[in-house]
Order: sequence, then structure tokens, then C-alpha cells
Amino acid sequence: MTPQGVFEREPVGMAERILADGSSRWPVEAGRYRLVVARACPWAHRSVIVRRLLGLEGAISMGIAGPLHDERSWRFHLDPGDRDPVLGIEYLGEAYRAADPDFDAGITVPALVDVASGQVATNGFADLTKDFSTQWTAHHRPGAPDLYPERHRAEIDEMIDSFYDSVNNGVYRCGFASTQEAYEQAYGELFDRLDALSDHLAGRRYLVGDTITEADVRLWVTLVRFDSAYHGHFKCNRHKLTEMPVLWAYARDLFATPGFGDTTDFVQVKQHYYGVHDSINPSGVVPLGPDLRGWLTPHGRDELGGRPFGDGTPPGPVAEAERVPSIG
Amino acid sequence: MTPQGVFEREPVGMAERILADGSSRWPVEAGRYRLVVARACPWAHRSVIVRRLLGLEGAISMGIAGPLHDERSWRFHLDPGDRDPVLGIEYLGEAYRAADPDFDAGITVPALVDVASGQVATNGFADLTKDFSTQWTAHHRPGAPDLYPERHRAEIDEMIDSFYDSVNNGVYRCGFASTQEAYEQAYGELFDRLDALSDHLAGRRYLVGDTITEADVRLWVTLVRFDSAYHGHFKCNRHKLTEMPVLWAYARDLFATPGFGDTTDFVQVKQHYYGVHDSINPSGVVPLGPDLRGWLTPHGRDELGGRPFGDGTPPGPVAEAERVPSIG
Repeated sequence: MTPQGVFEREPVGMAERILADGSSRWPVEAGRYRLVVARACPWAHRSVIVRRLLGLEGAISMGIAGPLHDERSWRFHLDPGDRDPVLGIEYLGEAYRAADPDFDAGITVPALVDVASGQVATNGFADLTKDFSTQWTAHHRPGAPDLYPERHRAEIDEMIDSFYDSVNNGVYRCGFASTQEAYEQAYGELFDRLDALSDHLAGRRYLVGDTITEADVRLWVTLVRFDSAYHGHFKCNRHKLTEMPVLWAYARDLFATPGFGDTTDFVQVKQHYYGVHDSINPSGVVPLGPDLRGWLTPHGRDELGGRPFGDGTPPGPVAEAERVPSIG
Repeated sequence: MTPQGVFEREPVGMAERILADGSSRWPVEAGRYRLVVARACPWAHRSVIVRRLLGLEGAISMGIAGPLHDERSWRFHLDPGDRDPVLGIEYLGEAYRAADPDFDAGITVPALVDVASGQVATNGFADLTKDFSTQWTAHHRPGAPDLYPERHRAEIDEMIDSFYDSVNNGVYRCGFASTQEAYEQAYGELFDRLDALSDHLAGRRYLVGDTITEADVRLWVTLVRFDSAYHGHFKCNRHKLTEMPVLWAYARDLFATPGFGDTTDFVQVKQHYYGVHDSINPSGVVPLGPDLRGWLTPHGRDELGGRPFGDGTPPGPVAEAERVPSIG
């Protein structure tokens, strides 16, 4: 925190790349890495969605940290024996310290862990999903969509830059502001940007081009958590998502699209935010609301056209071991 | 708090009556008492509304404690010199201790203070507004409505009993629950009762009979605070009031009725709840939302008929000194 009470996101400590051309420390190699995520975390959720849309499940296995922390941060409290069954660790921090015994930055998800050494290869969330699209092509499923099409990259990058600080990070800036002034600044930027995105999406189905891209994934992970976590817990309360008609329909459209709703666990989202941030919610009580049934109502966005998967196809069903509870 | 984390409202410490027949310690007498309220407080808001609807402003003056507390509870921090101009006190607690030097129960509003002695005569919120209707009739304005009509008293009492613990107090039981179990019990009772009230009000304009009564006043003071305070701060978040169509229209109808919206100060409501309950909101940051403009939209409830003030008339404009900021 700065003296003015502004939340500043800590830089990630191991933002390595995994590149296909062999120029990076870590090579692209099927079976080599385990993607450690948490259902609760929007930054991790991006990687869960993209891995599934691209069909990388066979090449990159997935470990799931539970929603609750102790003072040692993310831990595998949902797994048998409270240990990740592949990495054999209780705390994700063990993999960070395997890579760097003196590691003292944030223990964050998503993290790609080199299974053989047990070391975190990268927690660089800014590149991780783009690299899934561009570096792991040899391992994509047949029919994988192009989430980062070359002809739209500049536009996608500009779009995701336009809402990173105000929306993706902006909800945290609202919630963790420790002064009224810092909060009001963040709130203004958040809703100004959401209004602009609403205008942008009023007549078009997706953010860039006519297909789902990396930009949609990045906006959506924040929208899907909005009413369950950010509206109340982080005081992002000008309106609920359900009261912003264009964004709400856009969010429901993606929710109904394979890869999005079927990777979302609202229970874990609430358990995490309300259970872990004891400076915001000292009682640790987790709200029973909001009513989620609206997520399943018709969105009408198909009338806008668009080709969700472009020249590709939707992914098949979620593997049994990776299913989330349904809200139906 | 009990061991199970249930919020229990402390009994009021000076629940005296002021009766017209001279049988009580404190007599009905114009000019004798000052009604001390806070704009933020729903229990006090009842008395502000009823005093105005009945036209008791000339008989009972009003002092307004500000929304913020220090460790000595309600104080007159909005008044010049931080003192109530009539009672000359900084803290409402001074009037409680004037009545009882050993007073150690809650310093609550509303309180009727005997101006000459500076002593609290009563803080009995359960009877106070009914007594305004039934004991102070000699001082009612011409055209004052009958808010507690004799032929409907049993029904009104039954109605207000039906939502006191689940709704009026229920929002506090949600917010101050210190265990998940206590919270979930309170949340269930709250929304079950709101659903029942919604059903009841779907085809009728007011809760009892076809006019505004004490029952409407008591329900409405909770509804008007719902989205600004209880939805987020107290985790009453199954739906916002704006998402419960019948109750939302009912609340807007009364908001537009003289005595209701024109005595509501949303800014002070938020300042109080978010600023005073540091066990729930340690940062003290006050949310900028929700957007209040919806309160002014057409409610359509006049189609249900009803005679808001019965054989009476609406009150005139609010006295300049008692005006609240408008949301328009």
C-alpha cells in the first residue's frame, strides 16, 4: 500500500516464458508441466478456459488449489491427504521455493510447474494464455479455435490493455483501497470502463472480430465474479452485473459457451474472497447470495451473429475429474 | 453475542410511555419533549415519518444526531459547535445519564428527551410511533391520517410482528452473525418473509386496509435501506430490492409519498453503517453505489387503488431546517 491507500498489485516473481522455438529456459513439451490453478482466482481462470478451448488437457495436466489459504497461501486442501496428487506438495509455495529457495514474492496462481523437478517454471499470467495459443500449437486439439489471431493481435492487445487496470485489477483496487479517495478513483475508472465496454458490445457479439478471443476470456473472468464477489465484498456497487443489460447478456452468452460456465465454480469464488480477505470480512461469513439462476436465462446475443469458435469447433465435454458443480 | 454467533438486540433501557390520560410518569405536553433521531437509523426513521405525517412538528421538536459515532455513541456532529442547539449536549448519552447516572444500556435513537430537565423520557421504539398516533391526537395537524386505525389494530400488530424479527431486525441478524450457521438462519428467514410480503403486496397497495398505516412505515424503513446498506454490508444479498419487483414498486410508491422519500438521507445511511461498524468494514470506506436514480422511476402502484392518507390529506412541505438532500 502506498501512503494514499492505493492497492498496488505486486509484480509476479517468476514471469518466465515457455517458447516453442527453444529460445527460452523452459521448452514446450507435452506432459512436462502441471498447470496449478484455483477455481476462485480470475487470473487462473483465464488459463483454465484457454487450456480447455484449445484442448491442451492431454499436454498439460491441471492441479487445483482449494479456495482457502492459511498464512502459507494457496494449498491443496481439496485433494486427498491435502496434497496435489502429481506434485505431492501441500502448499504451492513449496514449488516456488523449489525453484528459488529465497523466493519471497507472492505465491500466485496460475503457475506452470515442471513436474520432474517440482519447480515453478512460470507464473507470468500476462503471457501464459497467449503462449498457450501461440507456442503450444503442436498440441492443440483438432478444431481448436484461434484465440489470438495474428490479424487481430494489435487490436486484442489494445483491448485487454484498456481494461486491465480499470476492470481486471480495478475491482481489487476498489476492494483493497484503504482510503476513501483511492476507492473513489478506482470505482470511477471501473464503471467508466464498463460503460465503454457496454457501448462497444451493444452491437457486436465479441470484443474483437466476430469470434471469441483472448480479450473475451480476460474480460469475462472478471464479469462472472462480479455479483458474487466484487459487488459486495469489493464495494463495486454502482450496479450489479445483472443491472447492466449488455454486459449481463454478453456474460450469459459466454457462460453458456463450452469452456466458460463449465469451468466456473461460484461456491469456491465466494469461499475464497470472503474467507481469505480477513481485512475486509473479519467474520469470515460467506454470503448465501446472489441467486445464480439468472445465468441460465436466454441471452439473445446469437442474433448479433458472430462465429464463437471461428473456423474451429467447440470443445467436448469436461473430463470427469475436472467438473465443477452446476448451478442448474 | 451468544456462543452460536447469533446477534441479539439489547432491550432498550428506558422504554417508558407518554400517555394522554395522565397515568404515565411523562405526560403528553406540546413543547415539552425533543425527539432525538438520526437520519441513518431505521428505528428512528419510523418516528421521523410518523411525526411528519401527523403534523407533530410544532408539538415535538427534533434534534438530529449525525451518522458517525465515537466510542460514546450517537453525537451531534452535524450541529454548530457539535452540540444540539436545544439540549446543549454533544452526546446523546448525556441525556441518558441525566435520567439515570448509572445508565449502561445502549444509547439508542429514537429518544424523547424532556427539554427542561435534559433527561431521556423514553427510548421505547416499539410504542413510540403508535403513541404518536393514539396519545398525541390533540396535537395532530388538521387532515392527519389515522396510521393506527382502531378497526385494524389487531391486523397491524400481527403484521408488524410477522416481520420484526425476520426483516427489521433480520438484516442486523444477517450482518452481525459471527458464525456461518447463524447467518444462514437469519438470511433464510429474511428472504422467506420478504417473499411472503411480496405475495401479499402483489395485489394490494398497502399492507393493511387500503391506506398507509404504521405497518407500512415499519416495513418501509428497512426496505429503503436495503440496497444502500443491507445488501452488501450485511450480506442480505439473495437479491437487491431493485430485483424484487413487487417490493421495489411498493417501496418506490411510498418513496414518492410525502413523509417517506423526503425524510430519507441515503448519504447518512451509508456513512453510518459503513463508518460505524468497524467489525464488518475495518477500512471505513463508504461505497459510492448504488445508483439511486431508480427510486424516481414510475411505480405503477396507483393502479391498485388505495387511499394513501384515507380521509386525511398529505402533509405540506418539509420545514427548511429539516430538509434532506434530494437524489434527483
